[in-house]
Amino acid sequence: MAEKKIEFRSIGIIHTPYKESAPNQPIEDAEGSFSIVVAPVFQEGLYLLEKFRYIYVIYHIDRLARRVNMVVKPPWAGGVQVGLFASRSPLRPNPIGLSIVRLKKIEENVIYTSGLDVFDGTPLLDIKPYIKDLDSKMDADYGWIEDLDNRDHLILHIKGIPHEY
Amino acid sequence: MAEKKIEFRSIGIIHTPYKESAPNQPIEDAEGSFSIVVAPVFQEGLYLLEKFRYIYVIYHIDRLARRVNMVVKPPWAGGVQVGLFASRSPLRPNPIGLSIVRLKKIEENVIYTSGLDVFDGTPLLDIKPYIKDLDSKMDADYGWIEDLDNRDHLILHIKGIPHEY
Repeated sequence: MAEKKIEFRSIGIIHTPYKESAPNQPIEDAEGSFSIVVAPVFQEGLYLLEKFRYIYVIYHIDRLARRVNMVVKPPWAGGVQVGLFASRSPLRPNPIGLSIVRLKKIEENVIYTSGLDVFDGTPLLDIKPYIKDLDSKMDADYGWIEDLDNRDHLILHIKGIPHEY
Repeated sequence: MAEKKIEFRSIGIIHTPYKESAPNQPIEDAEGSFSIVVAPVFQEGLYLLEKFRYIYVIYHIDRLARRVNMVVKPPWAGGVQVGLFASRSPLRPNPIGLSIVRLKKIEENVIYTSGLDVFDGTPLLDIKPYIKDLDSKMDADYGWIEDLDNRDHLILHIKGIPHEY
């Protein structure tokens, strides 16, 4: 059952300041310009999207060609090993990226957003509205991160709070 | 730029009680058994996933063959028209489904979850942990839903609260 092939296509291009390295997660007040250029044929599909504060951006992680491993050591996690699917590693069997960003404005077929954690030129696969209650789970947890010695430090990273240590 | 083809493959199969019709969104206490059978070659990638209360399930919406329209009328929305990307309609240029579900238990390569809003046999593309703060946006909104006359009724649907009207 692991062999069935599924074909998607790029519906636009994501533009970020990141040419050589990109952050591990979206940073809401990252410096620089972040925009998603949707192919003109899909522009009408953006109608009323601007009403939402947050959106899901789904994209093809197309710049990584390294081997996919089933066990990974996430950055900042002090060397702890976890299963790939218990991580947000970009090296996955299907390199589908998922980022939640703040929507700033839409001008024709261009969506301006808060910081995206992808390389400039990343192919867009889909955009979905992030809907209160449906997507914002108040009782979510940190999973295995809660068991780590440096839990509080990691949570600063997850929250995107700048810190010096 | 809308022509670049991207190939993914199924990494497992989702099992639900839904053979002929499926709900429009995950219902947390839906009746019946919901499980995700991950291909054995990927089983090691599930290590420590069970620590998370919620997970993202990403799948191929493979049972819909109707035409994709850029403007849609979401169910329950009283006939209002919105752009496709401002909706969670399953009829999208790239039929990638995204559901957040509660993780109940993992036994070998099988993940048991709360209610999933997909047909039985749906191909799995990816699983990601849903991480507090990173994914749970406390200031998310309802977008265009807030402008509707029957807003309160719609929000009951979004929250999955049973109601008689």
